[in-house]
Amino acid sequence: MNQTGLQHLLDIESLSQQQLNSLLELSRQVAHDTGSFANRLEGRVLINLFLEPSTRTRVSFEMAAKRLGMHVINFQPGFSSTVKGEALIDTFHTLQAMGPDVIAIRHARDGVVESLALEAGAGVHIINAGDGGYQHPTQALLDAVTLKAVHGDLSGQVITIAGDINHSRVARSGIAMFKKLGVAEIRLAGPAELLPTDGIDGVDLFTSLDDAVRGANVVMMLRIQKERFGELQQPDEDNYFETWGLTQKRLALAAPDCVVLHPGPVNRGVEIASEVADGEQSLIREQVKNGVFARMAVLLTLLNK
Amino acid sequence: MNQTGLQHLLDIESLSQQQLNSLLELSRQVAHDTGSFANRLEGRVLINLFLEPSTRTRVSFEMAAKRLGMHVINFQPGFSSTVKGEALIDTFHTLQAMGPDVIAIRHARDGVVESLALEAGAGVHIINAGDGGYQHPTQALLDAVTLKAVHGDLSGQVITIAGDINHSRVARSGIAMFKKLGVAEIRLAGPAELLPTDGIDGVDLFTSLDDAVRGANVVMMLRIQKERFGELQQPDEDNYFETWGLTQKRLALAAPDCVVLHPGPVNRGVEIASEVADGEQSLIREQVKNGVFARMAVLLTLLNK
Amino acid sequence: MNQTGLQHLLDIESLSQQQLNSLLELSRQVAHDTGSFANRLEGRVLINLFLEPSTRTRVSFEMAAKRLGMHVINFQPGFSSTVKGEALIDTFHTLQAMGPDVIAIRHARDGVVESLALEAGAGVHIINAGDGGYQHPTQALLDAVTLKAVHGDLSGQVITIAGDINHSRVARSGIAMFKKLGVAEIRLAGPAELLPTDGIDGVDLFTSLDDAVRGANVVMMLRIQKERFGELQQPDEDNYFETWGLTQKRLALAAPDCVVLHPGPVNRGVEIASEVADGEQSLIREQVKNGVFARMAVLLTLLNK
Repeated sequence: MNQTGLQHLLDIESLSQQQLNSLLELSRQVAHDTGSFANRLEGRVLINLFLEPSTRTRVSFEMAAKRLGMHVINFQPGFSSTVKGEALIDTFHTLQAMGPDVIAIRHARDGVVESLALEAGAGVHIINAGDGGYQHPTQALLDAVTLKAVHGDLSGQVITIAGDINHSRVARSGIAMFKKLGVAEIRLAGPAELLPTDGIDGVDLFTSLDDAVRGANVVMMLRIQKERFGELQQPDEDNYFETWGLTQKRLALAAPDCVVLHPGPVNRGVEIASEVADGEQSLIREQVKNGVFARMAVLLTLLNK
Repeated sequence: MNQTGLQHLLDIESLSQQQLNSLLELSRQVAHDTGSFANRLEGRVLINLFLEPSTRTRVSFEMAAKRLGMHVINFQPGFSSTVKGEALIDTFHTLQAMGPDVIAIRHARDGVVESLALEAGAGVHIINAGDGGYQHPTQALLDAVTLKAVHGDLSGQVITIAGDINHSRVARSGIAMFKKLGVAEIRLAGPAELLPTDGIDGVDLFTSLDDAVRGANVVMMLRIQKERFGELQQPDEDNYFETWGLTQKRLALAAPDCVVLHPGPVNRGVEIASEVADGEQSLIREQVKNGVFARMAVLLTLLNK
Repeated sequence: MNQTGLQHLLDIESLSQQQLNSLLELSRQVAHDTGSFANRLEGRVLINLFLEPSTRTRVSFEMAAKRLGMHVINFQPGFSSTVKGEALIDTFHTLQAMGPDVIAIRHARDGVVESLALEAGAGVHIINAGDGGYQHPTQALLDAVTLKAVHGDLSGQVITIAGDINHSRVARSGIAMFKKLGVAEIRLAGPAELLPTDGIDGVDLFTSLDDAVRGANVVMMLRIQKERFGELQQPDEDNYFETWGLTQKRLALAAPDCVVLHPGPVNRGVEIASEVADGEQSLIREQVKNGVFARMAVLLTLLNK
């Protein structure tokens, strides 16, 4: 247990306001003076247990850890003893027994990381690096860090999240984050079949992107999570852009200070026009940059340094 | 050549009694004061040349090396110039020419590591990380370290190894280890077709697990090495558990101080019941933990630090 | 920008004579006193962005970087967000935004690395680790380092490059290098369909290996780049050796001091006889060894240390 009382980072919901503020402030410090944190976690070990393909998140964690002087061990599916039929829980216990300080886990199934964390011993810290359509707390952190650097206090802001809401852990963790940051309004927009049917408290649903973008201070675009549709009919990509793609024209409906977020990977011409993704209002590359700093802050906090 | 005269670790058989004792003693020291060995091998390089899938052993070597401050380079099949048709021996010479201090090699074919070691130059140390059904010396070391921590001197003990003996490098290296440690009796148990037909000196064969477990101080369960059966008929998994699975009831036949080992990955409900794998007599997680310490000891010994 | 004015290493052609000499001299120093460069680039980060399979080059870069105390992050295809359909350029920008100091890029398509380098920010250095049949500048550097260590000044030398010239980035970068080093004659030899049809300035074409080898001081053998033939008819391997394989008998036609190079991986019995590859005139393992030193020199130069 450390000063902030944070043993694992599994979701945004269970962070106290103080823990959240402390993480955001530390991320800011790391971003402004990265070099002074070099080797702060020298000799500590992070295992990246990534059971779903990922570039940016795995590399971001690896970069964050190495910038702090940690050792990093990557565990990759397809080159693992899962070919020998070992259960995930046994893999987890095996890795844990080897004595890492932190295990960052990504998995395609909702709730897997939380249930593994229940099996974690006192000496190891678990980070949810994204599970299914459920939680992605470090993404929500880096989004908050990115927005606060541009907009400062977010309390008066209107935030629009648009696209495949139902399959998105980014949306779910983002909503929890924006609520904690006390934004004025959270709007969810997308095709009816990709929106939650049971209303979410404190969130407004839109089935028109124009309406959802109008007057917004932030627009976060999400990609279609094809890999999570299962047997559901997938939206047609060509028509999708016409109705749900963020174009410069649509973005003009937003507030003048409006910025655009996208967790990546970006599908140009599907959920976002290239001119928007690469435009002046886009913070997409800032998000990536801040992802490393936010993850450094998480590692420092969990290891109490 | 170093103080112990150990250039490579290829098998247990060729270790002198003094070399073995020194490795076991160093493993014990590393386990008790891991931190004091940090950076002892700073700047040295380990290449993991793993030509057969593995989680635990590759990660264990990587963890061991990094805990000592070594650099680790992983070479993985399927993402290699073997797609360009290079022979293994050329890959080995290439990696060797790059100047690593140690190469840990795993291969699916018996004897491959030994023959590569014959090609090794004076400046590089080879560790057999498991070859086919032949040798797995670091597994035998970690088993010995684990047992000695619990049972102390093993000289009076009865050790039972049960399961797919014929295809198991763990069994082969284990038998060599237990002989050197002077145990009272080594019992091998398994279906007749998985037991050696040409008798092994100093070993008793059993075709009943009950008989083999009765009075034993250690029971080491092995999984069916499906990947090594080739054209042989594989045992039926359902019936296998009934006849050859270690249950709590069967374990009750053993000596009261009996402990259970398994090299992993565990197949619950095939060769071992979950209640035994997770039970109080199980040392499975201790084995994993000691695997890192034993490999640290091997690296320190080979590099004479 | 650094002392040598070298921001990226993309090809040999655009190196000034002074930059080339400085790289070669630094490689020599690194080879002679490797240890004194340990930790010279401590805390700096290399990303290996390898989008085409490779063992030796990826491991060589990783070894070079780690010998200098750098952190290395490997990005591997097949385990990446390219499964989510992200464009290469977005992957590049994402990795770049994470703040690495150097990105070494290998890609199967000609010119890709150059075009990515145009997108690179001021803080990151790009190394072409081989693109298609186009450029492989670190290979040319290591070849030059290897030859100069044996032959000293190359200005009077006759150099023969034989095999699949058309598909070889090694040939292309090598020719540029040998011209800059002022060799007396560059000979290209191979089946007519694998030789350039539009003449290259300052290069002599041969369709007989005997003629091309006669009197040469250096023979560099290339493998058939099967993966780059597309719909072209591939040469028959059995007949190929008879006509285009370098045998001891053919090598006897060369100058007495003639040495043999091969960028690897070697196909014994196809483009080269085993007795030649392993013979006294072969510098193949020296090339691998010098590859690490040459890449250390490149990293040191780009990062101005």
